[in-house]
Amino acid sequence: MKIKVINPNTTIAMTKGIEEAAKSAARSDTQILAVSPKMGPVSIESYYDEYLSIPGVIEEVIKGEEEGVDAFVIACYGDPGLHAAREVTDKPVVGIAEASVYLASILAARFSVVTVLPRIKTMLEELVDSYGMHKRVVNIRTTPMGVLDFERDPEAGMELLRLEGRKAVEEDHAEAILLGCAGMAEFADSLEKELGVPVIDGVVAAVKFAESIVDLGKKTSKLKTYKYPEKKEYIGKLASFGYSSIKK
Amino acid sequence: MKIKVINPNTTIAMTKGIEEAAKSAARSDTQILAVSPKMGPVSIESYYDEYLSIPGVIEEVIKGEEEGVDAFVIACYGDPGLHAAREVTDKPVVGIAEASVYLASILAARFSVVTVLPRIKTMLEELVDSYGMHKRVVNIRTTPMGVLDFERDPEAGMELLRLEGRKAVEEDHAEAILLGCAGMAEFADSLEKELGVPVIDGVVAAVKFAESIVDLGKKTSKLKTYKYPEKKEYIGKLASFGYSSIKK
Amino acid sequence: MKIKVINPNTTIAMTKGIEEAAKSAARSDTQILAVSPKMGPVSIESYYDEYLSIPGVIEEVIKGEEEGVDAFVIACYGDPGLHAAREVTDKPVVGIAEASVYLASILAARFSVVTVLPRIKTMLEELVDSYGMHKRVVNIRTTPMGVLDFERDPEAGMELLRLEGRKAVEEDHAEAILLGCAGMAEFADSLEKELGVPVIDGVVAAVKFAESIVDLGKKTSKLKTYKYPEKKEYIGKLASFGYSSIKK
Amino acid sequence: MKIKVINPNTTIAMTKGIEEAAKSAARSDTQILAVSPKMGPVSIESYYDEYLSIPGVIEEVIKGEEEGVDAFVIACYGDPGLHAAREVTDKPVVGIAEASVYLASILAARFSVVTVLPRIKTMLEELVDSYGMHKRVVNIRTTPMGVLDFERDPEAGMELLRLEGRKAVEEDHAEAILLGCAGMAEFADSLEKELGVPVIDGVVAAVKFAESIVDLGKKTSKLKTYKYPEKKEYIGKLASFGYSSIKK
Amino acid sequence: MKIKVINPNTTIAMTKGIEEAAKSAARSDTQILAVSPKMGPVSIESYYDEYLSIPGVIEEVIKGEEEGVDAFVIACYGDPGLHAAREVTDKPVVGIAEASVYLASILAARFSVVTVLPRIKTMLEELVDSYGMHKRVVNIRTTPMGVLDFERDPEAGMELLRLEGRKAVEEDHAEAILLGCAGMAEFADSLEKELGVPVIDGVVAAVKFAESIVDLGKKTSKLKTYKYPEKKEYIGKLASFGYSSIKK
Amino acid sequence: MKIKVINPNTTIAMTKGIEEAAKSAARSDTQILAVSPKMGPVSIESYYDEYLSIPGVIEEVIKGEEEGVDAFVIACYGDPGLHAAREVTDKPVVGIAEASVYLASILAARFSVVTVLPRIKTMLEELVDSYGMHKRVVNIRTTPMGVLDFERDPEAGMELLRLEGRKAVEEDHAEAILLGCAGMAEFADSLEKELGVPVIDGVVAAVKFAESIVDLGKKTSKLKTYKYPEKKEYIGKLASFGYSSIKK
Repeated sequence: MKIKVINPNTTIAMTKGIEEAAKSAARSDTQILAVSPKMGPVSIESYYDEYLSIPGVIEEVIKGEEEGVDAFVIACYGDPGLHAAREVTDKPVVGIAEASVYLASILAARFSVVTVLPRIKTMLEELVDSYGMHKRVVNIRTTPMGVLDFERDPEAGMELLRLEGRKAVEEDHAEAILLGCAGMAEFADSLEKELGVPVIDGVVAAVKFAESIVDLGKKTSKLKTYKYPEKKEYIGKLASFGYSSIKK
Repeated sequence: MKIKVINPNTTIAMTKGIEEAAKSAARSDTQILAVSPKMGPVSIESYYDEYLSIPGVIEEVIKGEEEGVDAFVIACYGDPGLHAAREVTDKPVVGIAEASVYLASILAARFSVVTVLPRIKTMLEELVDSYGMHKRVVNIRTTPMGVLDFERDPEAGMELLRLEGRKAVEEDHAEAILLGCAGMAEFADSLEKELGVPVIDGVVAAVKFAESIVDLGKKTSKLKTYKYPEKKEYIGKLASFGYSSIKK
Repeated sequence: MKIKVINPNTTIAMTKGIEEAAKSAARSDTQILAVSPKMGPVSIESYYDEYLSIPGVIEEVIKGEEEGVDAFVIACYGDPGLHAAREVTDKPVVGIAEASVYLASILAARFSVVTVLPRIKTMLEELVDSYGMHKRVVNIRTTPMGVLDFERDPEAGMELLRLEGRKAVEEDHAEAILLGCAGMAEFADSLEKELGVPVIDGVVAAVKFAESIVDLGKKTSKLKTYKYPEKKEYIGKLASFGYSSIKK
Repeated sequence: MKIKVINPNTTIAMTKGIEEAAKSAARSDTQILAVSPKMGPVSIESYYDEYLSIPGVIEEVIKGEEEGVDAFVIACYGDPGLHAAREVTDKPVVGIAEASVYLASILAARFSVVTVLPRIKTMLEELVDSYGMHKRVVNIRTTPMGVLDFERDPEAGMELLRLEGRKAVEEDHAEAILLGCAGMAEFADSLEKELGVPVIDGVVAAVKFAESIVDLGKKTSKLKTYKYPEKKEYIGKLASFGYSSIKK
Repeated sequence: MKIKVINPNTTIAMTKGIEEAAKSAARSDTQILAVSPKMGPVSIESYYDEYLSIPGVIEEVIKGEEEGVDAFVIACYGDPGLHAAREVTDKPVVGIAEASVYLASILAARFSVVTVLPRIKTMLEELVDSYGMHKRVVNIRTTPMGVLDFERDPEAGMELLRLEGRKAVEEDHAEAILLGCAGMAEFADSLEKELGVPVIDGVVAAVKFAESIVDLGKKTSKLKTYKYPEKKEYIGKLASFGYSSIKK
Repeated sequence: MKIKVINPNTTIAMTKGIEEAAKSAARSDTQILAVSPKMGPVSIESYYDEYLSIPGVIEEVIKGEEEGVDAFVIACYGDPGLHAAREVTDKPVVGIAEASVYLASILAARFSVVTVLPRIKTMLEELVDSYGMHKRVVNIRTTPMGVLDFERDPEAGMELLRLEGRKAVEEDHAEAILLGCAGMAEFADSLEKELGVPVIDGVVAAVKFAESIVDLGKKTSKLKTYKYPEKKEYIGKLASFGYSSIKK
C-alpha cells in the first residue's frame, strides 16, 4: 500500500527526517511518500503558521488521489487541516497528535506532552480536549526551542527533552511521554531508555494506524461532516482550489 | 473609530449586505470598512472552505494595520482564522459566532442556532463548545439551503428560518435564536417579531462589542498565545505571508 | 440612554467610585445612575452577604422601570441576583463578572481573577463555571484584604494586586487579569501598565455591553426562564415584594 | 435530637404537610421542628421567589442556634440559601434536592425529576449540575401546575405526576423518579406503587441524612468557604442581619 | 434491622476493625454482620486485587438474601463490585467511597482524599469522577504505606495521615479529609481533632446511609440497569455463580 | 508475532467466530490464539457477568506470558478487566470497545453504538465516557436480543442490526456504526454495504492496533497505575491468583 506522509511545513530537511521515521515503522510492503507542501511556512509555531500551512496540506491530499495513495498522515502535532483533508478524499487521514493520544491511552493511564515554544500550549490544550483526552493528558510541557532549533541543534534539543521528560515523570507523574512535534521522532528511543516510560512519536503511531485502517478496508464516512466539499468557485491565489480541483 | 468587517467569503454582494448590517448597528462616528478577501471561496460551507478562507482573512487583517483600523470583525459564523488574526495585530478581533453566544447569554438562559447546510453542524458544535456554551446552546438547527441560496432567494430563506426558528422555540424550548450565517442579518428583525424571542445576528453583535473594546482602550494580550508570529519564511503562493509582511 | 448601575452593597463611598468608573467608560450621551440598595450589607464577602444583598438589588431594578432606565448593571463580582433581576424587567441586565469573562475571552486565551478574601474562591469558581469559562480561567487568586479594606487603604490594596497579578502572569501564565471586585476599578490602568497584560474591570465592561445591547434594541427573553415572576403574595419585612410591586 | 425543617415559603398549610412527611421518616427520638420564615413568598416558582425566600430561611437558621437545634433541613427543591445557611451555623444543613439526588444515586443508575412549572427547569438543571449529577439526571420534567396548585387540588396533581412519571420511565428510561417540590411528599408512596420504580421525596431523604450526620457527630467545615460571615453592618429592612445577630 | 458489612479483602483482623467502626456508628437496634469473602486477596491495592475481590463480595451479597439482611455496605474505598451487587439483590447496597463523597459534600465545599499507595490514584480519580465529584475533590493524596501496613503499624500510619492531611489543608485548601481506605476508620477522630476539619471515614458514613434507606423502605430500582442478572450458566471455578444461585 | 484474543465468555462457538474475525484481519505472519477462559459466564450481559468474567480473562493473560504472546486483545464490548490485564503483563493489551471508538474517531465525526440488551446501556455510557468519547458517541442503541441470541439466530440478529443501524443514521445522524458485541463481527460487511457508512467491529480494530503496537516495540507503562500487582496472598477458590502466579 502507499501512504502519503505530509509534513505541513516546507523544510525539506525535516521532511526527510519524518520520512525516515515513517519508513522505520512501515511494513516492508508499505510505500511511504513523504512530501512538503508547495506553499506555506518553513515551520509551524503559532495559529498563524498552522492555518497557513493548511492550503498546502490540502493540495497534497488532493494530489494524492491521482497518485494512488491509500491513506494520508498529517505530520505536524497540531494536526493542521485534518478535518478538511477528510472532506477531499475518502481515503483515511490520520493526524499525528490524534494517533499519539489514542496509542498512549492503550499503554498508559496518564501522560504528558513535551513540545516546542510556550505559545502553542493553548493550541495543544484545545486539540487534546477535542480528542476527549483532557483527563489523560496531565500536562503539556514546552521548551524554549522552536521547531527548527531541534533540527539545527539536536543535542541541545535532546537535553531539553530529557529535562522536561524527567519533570513530566517526577512532577506530573506522567506514565508516558508524547513528543509534541513531528521533528522529534529521532529522540524517542533514547529518551524512552533514559526515562523508563513509553515515549511516543506521533509519526510512527500514525503510520501504523494508517496501515491498519487500509488493511481493514475502511474509508472515511462521507455521510455528513466529511462529505466532499460543495460545488463552488475560488478566486485569487487560491483559485486552483475551486470545486473542479477535487477528485471524487 | 474605524472597524474593519471582513466577510471571509469572496461574494461581494454578500459583503454589501454585511456592510449594511454593520452600519445599521454602528454609532454615527464609527467608520465601517467592509471587505472580502482577495482570495478564497465564494461561500463557506465545510471545513475545506473554512480553512481556505483564512489566508485571505489574515491578509486583510494585516492590511488593516496600515489602514489605521481600530478593531476587526470576522463575519462568518465559523469565526475562521480568529486566533491567527489575534496574533498578527494587537487591535481587538471579534468573531460573529463568539459575539452572538456571549450576547445571547445575557438575554436568554437557553438558545438554539439556526444555520445553513447539515454538514456544518459538527463544526458549529465544536465551536460552541470551545466558547464554553454547550449547556446554553440547546440545539443547532440546519436548513437544506446553502449560504448563497439565502442571497439568491431570500423569501425561501425566510420561510425556512421561520420554520426552524419556530421548532427551536417549541421543541427545543430555545429562549433566543442565533442566526448561524453572516448573510442572515436581514432576517433578524422580522423573525424576532414573529417568534417573540430575541433573534440575534452575530454581525451587529460583533460590531458593538468591537466598539466597546475600542472605547475601553483594550487590546489583545501579546503575552503568550497571541504573540506576534515567529520570524520565518513562507514559500510558494503564500510567500507573501513571510514574517516581513506582518506589521507590528 | 439611561443605565442604572447598582452597587449591591450599601457603602456609598464605594458606589461613588463605581459611578466614576462607569461614567469614565460611558458614552457622552449615556446617563449613569449609580445607586446602593436601601437595605443589606455594607460589603459582600460570603454567600450570606451575597444572598442578603439581593432583595435590595431587585428593589432597585423594579424601581428602575419607573425611572425610565434602559439597562441595568449589577456591580458586584458575584453577580448577585442577576437571574431574578432578569425576571422583573425586560430591559437588559448585565453582571460585572459575566461581562468581564466574556470581554477577557476576546482579548486573551487564558486569564486569572484576582479578588478579595480566600473564602469567596469557591463562590467564584462556581460562578465562572456557570458561564462556561472554567477552561479559560486558570486561577482565582485571593488576597488577605476585604472589600472595604481596598477602600480604606488603596495603596496596600494596589500593592497586593500587583503581587498577585504578577504571580498570575508568572505562575499561572495568565494572559489577562480580571479584577474580582467592583471596588478595584481604580487600579486597572496602572496595573495594566505594570503587568503588560490587559487588566479588566467588570464595571466598565458591563457598562459598554449594556450600551451595546440597548443600541441593538435587544431585550431579555420573556419566554420561559426569565418570565415575569408569578402572581403571589409576600409577607413580613419583604411584603413589599408581592406581585403588585412588579411593573410589567 | 432536634432537626429544624425550614419550609422556605410562607404557606403554613404546606409547612404542615412537610412536617408530617418529616415526622413520618424521623426516628421516634428525633424531634422535628417545622417552620415557615417570617418573611417572603407564599410559594417559590422563579429565581425571584427563590432569592427572596433566603433572608427568611437564614433568619430561621440563626434562630435555630438558640433553639438547640442539631441539624437543619431546607425543604424547597431549589435548596435556597443552602450555602449561606452553612456559614451561619456549624450544625449540618441539608437541602432536599441535594439529599434526593445522592439518595437516588444509591438506588438507581439514571433518574428524572418531576417538578412544577416549566420556568424552573433551567434553575434545576443548574442545581443538578452543581451537585455533579448531570449524567445521572436524564430529564427534568415539568407540569403546568404551580406549587400551591398541588396543595389546592391534590387529585389533579397526582394525575399529572402519574402522567409525567410514566413518561419519565417510558421515554427517558428513568429508573427512579425524584419529586421536585417539597409539597409532593404525600404522592410518593402511591406513585411508587403505580410506576414500579423508586419515587424519592427529598424531605424524608434530607431528614434521614440529617439524623445520620448528627449521629456521626459531624459538623460543617469552618475552614474556608463556610466560615462564619465577616463582621459588618446591615442597613434598612435587613439591618437585623448585621454581624451581632449571628450566634457563633 | 440487619446490615451486612462486607470487607472485600480476606484479612479477618481488618474485618474486625471495620466491624467495630460500623458498630460504633450503628443504632442500638441495628445488627451489624461484618464478613470477609471466602475467596480473594488479603488486601486491595490495584485493579487486579479490586476485580478479583468482586466474586467473593458478590457471593456474600447473594448469601445475604438468605440471612435476612436489609442492606449491604461494601467496605473498600474502590467500591468493588458495587453495580453487580445491586443486580443480585433488591436491598440497598452502599459503597464507602460513594457514601463518603456524598456526606462530605454536605459538610464541605472542597475536600481531599488521603489513601494508600500511589498506584491507586488513577483508580480513585476515575471513581470520584463517576460519582460526579471531580470539582469537589481537589486532590487524592497517597502514602507509601499499603493497606496492611496500616494494620501492622498504626502509629506510622497515623503519622503519615497527619502529614498528608495537613498538606491537604494547607496546600490543597481542602475543607474536609476523606479517608481512602476502610482500615483507616480508627484514625478519624484524632485526625479530625488535630486538623480542625471534618475527617470522614466511609464505613460509618455508609452504615448511616444504609440505615436511612432501610428506614425509608427504599429498594434498588429493578427497572433496567440493576435488573437481576440474566438466566445463564457459569463454568469452572465460578460455576457456582450460575443463575440458580441468585435468590430473587 | 503472536496475539492472544481472549473472548471473556465461555461459549466456544462464539470464540470460534471471534477467531475467524481476528484471523481475517491479521497479517499472514501474525498468529492468532483465540481462547475462552476456564471459568465464568457463557455470555456477558450485566455488571454481574462482566465482573465475574474477569478472573478467567486475567488467568488467560497471565498464562499468555508463558505462551510467548506479544499482545492481548480482550474481545467483549465492555472491555472487562482491561486495566488489571495491563498490570499482570507488560505486553500491550487492547480492548475492543476502546479500539473501536478510537478507530471510529479517525473515520467519522459522530457515531452510534448498536448493542444487545437495554440493561447494558448505562455500562456502555460509562465506558465510552471513560475513553473521552461522550461527544462523539451520539447514541447507544440496544436490541431485545441477548449475546447468544445473535449466535443462535443470526438472521434475526442481522434484521435488528439493520433496523437500529438505519435509525442511527437517520435519527441520530450517526456517521458510522459501532458493533457493540464481539459476536457481531460477521454482520459488519453486509451492514456497511446496506447503510453506506463505516460499520466498525471492535475485534478486527483491536487486532490491527495490537499488531501496530507490537511492530513499534511499545509496551505498557509500568511506572505507576499499571505496575505489577503487589506481593500478596489470595485465598479460597481464587488462591491461585496469589502473587507467585504472576510472571514478571
